[in-house]
Amino acid sequence: MIEPRLQPPATKDHVSVAHLPAFWYIACESSALTDKPRAITILGTPLVLFRTKGGKPGALLDRCPHRNVPLSIGAVVGERIQCGYHGWEFDTQGTCQLVPGLCTEPEAKGRRAERYPIAEQDGFVWVFMTPNVDPDTEPFRFPNVGDKGYTTAYRSVEAQASVHATIENALDVPHTAYLHKGLFRGTGEPNEIDVVVSRWHDRVEAEYIGEPRPEGVVGKLLSPSGGMVTHFDRFFMPSIAQVEYRIGDENHILVTSVCTPVTDFHTVLHAVISFRTRIPGALVKPVLQPLAMKIFGQDAVVLKLQTEAIHRFGGEQYVSTELDILGPQIWRLMRQAERGEVVPVDEPVVKTLKMRV
Amino acid sequence: MIEPRLQPPATKDHVSVAHLPAFWYIACESSALTDKPRAITILGTPLVLFRTKGGKPGALLDRCPHRNVPLSIGAVVGERIQCGYHGWEFDTQGTCQLVPGLCTEPEAKGRRAERYPIAEQDGFVWVFMTPNVDPDTEPFRFPNVGDKGYTTAYRSVEAQASVHATIENALDVPHTAYLHKGLFRGTGEPNEIDVVVSRWHDRVEAEYIGEPRPEGVVGKLLSPSGGMVTHFDRFFMPSIAQVEYRIGDENHILVTSVCTPVTDFHTVLHAVISFRTRIPGALVKPVLQPLAMKIFGQDAVVLKLQTEAIHRFGGEQYVSTELDILGPQIWRLMRQAERGEVVPVDEPVVKTLKMRV
Amino acid sequence: MIEPRLQPPATKDHVSVAHLPAFWYIACESSALTDKPRAITILGTPLVLFRTKGGKPGALLDRCPHRNVPLSIGAVVGERIQCGYHGWEFDTQGTCQLVPGLCTEPEAKGRRAERYPIAEQDGFVWVFMTPNVDPDTEPFRFPNVGDKGYTTAYRSVEAQASVHATIENALDVPHTAYLHKGLFRGTGEPNEIDVVVSRWHDRVEAEYIGEPRPEGVVGKLLSPSGGMVTHFDRFFMPSIAQVEYRIGDENHILVTSVCTPVTDFHTVLHAVISFRTRIPGALVKPVLQPLAMKIFGQDAVVLKLQTEAIHRFGGEQYVSTELDILGPQIWRLMRQAERGEVVPVDEPVVKTLKMRV
Repeated sequence: MIEPRLQPPATKDHVSVAHLPAFWYIACESSALTDKPRAITILGTPLVLFRTKGGKPGALLDRCPHRNVPLSIGAVVGERIQCGYHGWEFDTQGTCQLVPGLCTEPEAKGRRAERYPIAEQDGFVWVFMTPNVDPDTEPFRFPNVGDKGYTTAYRSVEAQASVHATIENALDVPHTAYLHKGLFRGTGEPNEIDVVVSRWHDRVEAEYIGEPRPEGVVGKLLSPSGGMVTHFDRFFMPSIAQVEYRIGDENHILVTSVCTPVTDFHTVLHAVISFRTRIPGALVKPVLQPLAMKIFGQDAVVLKLQTEAIHRFGGEQYVSTELDILGPQIWRLMRQAERGEVVPVDEPVVKTLKMRV
Repeated sequence: MIEPRLQPPATKDHVSVAHLPAFWYIACESSALTDKPRAITILGTPLVLFRTKGGKPGALLDRCPHRNVPLSIGAVVGERIQCGYHGWEFDTQGTCQLVPGLCTEPEAKGRRAERYPIAEQDGFVWVFMTPNVDPDTEPFRFPNVGDKGYTTAYRSVEAQASVHATIENALDVPHTAYLHKGLFRGTGEPNEIDVVVSRWHDRVEAEYIGEPRPEGVVGKLLSPSGGMVTHFDRFFMPSIAQVEYRIGDENHILVTSVCTPVTDFHTVLHAVISFRTRIPGALVKPVLQPLAMKIFGQDAVVLKLQTEAIHRFGGEQYVSTELDILGPQIWRLMRQAERGEVVPVDEPVVKTLKMRV
Repeated sequence: MIEPRLQPPATKDHVSVAHLPAFWYIACESSALTDKPRAITILGTPLVLFRTKGGKPGALLDRCPHRNVPLSIGAVVGERIQCGYHGWEFDTQGTCQLVPGLCTEPEAKGRRAERYPIAEQDGFVWVFMTPNVDPDTEPFRFPNVGDKGYTTAYRSVEAQASVHATIENALDVPHTAYLHKGLFRGTGEPNEIDVVVSRWHDRVEAEYIGEPRPEGVVGKLLSPSGGMVTHFDRFFMPSIAQVEYRIGDENHILVTSVCTPVTDFHTVLHAVISFRTRIPGALVKPVLQPLAMKIFGQDAVVLKLQTEAIHRFGGEQYVSTELDILGPQIWRLMRQAERGEVVPVDEPVVKTLKMRV
């Protein structure tokens, strides 16, 4: 390939993409996992997921050890997955149990397919992205799902952006007044408020104190009469964003978004929205859903443009201010984990700052 | 370009692609070579093929030495090909015979176009892929073509796969029971048979002894009443696969597939099928053709998926068993030739094994 | 990525692409620059161009220093451009004047957007491709525009080719008899003529002496009755081609093409055609325009094929004759400028040669 000669000014080649294989990620909804094998890519690694006739879920590297065709074009046969090319069969542990035509034993170490730990929880199928191990952690638990008085909605969307950019965007307050003008913020006069940021070794939280009820459509919908606002934004390792709002006594909304890094700049975001409002949930849901999708659609456009710019310039070159409250902190945690430099703490590092919203 | 950070587990970067320029390859059928220049790529090298007004075939590198536009956009003028940009003219030897406007002699060493040896035989145009030489070998001869009692059919198909993968697939027995289930094998109970493999320095042969008549549609068509089966699979350097079947005394079928490596993972396969059957050839042909195309279509799908997997994982990582009778042997011959380590032998190396078909 | 193994014969990896940032290039027509920001790439560098509410033009690097999204998706607000993501505002000097929500001063060195010098002249917007400087040169002046008796036509076209290849083509005589056969040259018997080539440090000129009136449609249109021909082809650094024809006393045509290198192999050509003919300009224009577009269309096809060949073979490998009068000289000037080895001269280096047209 001929290297381009005409290029933009040199950029540090940094990109905020971390390789974090020792964590659980959502692969798909439980209901989507059947005996028809399914190709799913996580951390750039092609996997085949399948459910045996006995109902057991399995996740293997999506490549037959024999001639490397994807196992996902094969079929489930009893408790095994069968390759579509030569009929080799693998159990959910990745062990080769049949080589058709062979007069000797099929099982051999070299014929194993890489196995990835798999679990089902809260209606999702989770995969632990280190092969052939038994993880000592469990997938993330969603709060408030199924609690009395709460309605829960599920939504999966995709962003052509890194997990870090997607989560920074999901937990960023200042852009809402511009990118989502009128829908969320950006119509009233700004007020100066306090923000308290607490960082642990595996999570960060920002509490917004003194925030008025958002002026836009969303705020009015949730709490027509205004009221005292409590607002937290949280990040949990490796890829979970959570926004919590309480407006007055009656309205509580909690949006937890679990991100799956498909490739460096392709993220699937599984959002679980649990809420309790004065207006009945069944009435709120049909109004909230299209609004949420419109807001996410605007974010998806800007995230894609950001990714394109990173590629065009050969890397990121960001300048942050103190208003970039969580993004840099999240990157710090991701990098520490990638480098194996995590030191567990009980007490968070706390910082306060002022901003105008 | 930004290198991807999220990638599948490391793979040896081996691919079974050999660069073998000292051989003849089929470029096209003779009837397809006219005075309209034709762009054809072999071994990744763009060539222009043309037939002069006097009927002589020519093959040159498809790049005008002057300003590098493809000569294939030009025209044949008498015994020469003329570039479409500035009108430079080259004879079939690649010598520049005219530079329009020039007041001095046109011929000059630097103005030569690379010439590739070209030959016509058995209805095909063959090119020897080393430029500017006089090869001391001749193209491969197809057996039985034109013999009394034989019918011959021709078919060219394409695979998005390497020559090695395409030929291994063409000469592989075990996949037929899975990929082509019902069409070829895979319906009856398997029998244990003997296979005798003989390897020379430039070819390999597998003889299947004790094989029952294939149970699928193809077997029934060729020999409705069953009968004793003789079956050979053969490879000839650099890229020829041959399957020979005799069923009973009356049925003889010989499929010779000459592969042309277009690029690393794009192969054109020119198949010549000569057969003598109890049922008249004119009746067999219209039934056999669509069946053969269906079988090849299934192979083409799996070969393409195999190629995609090789690219996704950054190389091949194959595990073979003794059922992979010819593939590893073929690769061995190709590599020896690529490294210039071929030692001619009179007696083959012979190996026997058992398999269930 | 897997490197290809099957490749054409090795080529020097030279490409005639020079990086010349210390020059003015045309970005667009003045009328196309409004308060709606516009993304324009020059020398591979993405720029945002905009006109403030007060009418002042601005050119900045098209990347917000904050989170790197293109400023071109933003909006003009008064005398500033506002980013569409978080609302940061920049003046035409690239200084950050507002960070919404921030309680401290917005202006900071790290928050500057790169500024490119911008000028408006002769109906075009020009950008000087070195950021943050005050250039001591001015954009190129088009001759004869607005002169008494002259008609001027404007046309912008695109070529999938380098600036060098595009200009060499625009100033090349021999190809017109082949690529544009019948339209321009190539129908009559060739005559031997003299060419005088003069090279300064920043321009080259070829004078064609004794050239007959071109035989094709264009020549007949301009001067039905024939007449004495004066013909100059000129190149001006860094990317300007000029063709001047006088046929008889009454016909004078001057085509000046200013090339903008978008990327290595993508060039936009802004042509300004000024002419004075015996036939009234208003009659000539509607006939000349489609003819000129047909000729350029043929050139665009061959330039694209040339670019594709360069990529296919991994570089250029040109053989020139003395008929390649200007191309090699132009490349010499471009390379000298790229290397900073320009020595200003008053007297040109002069060379004469013979050719047949």
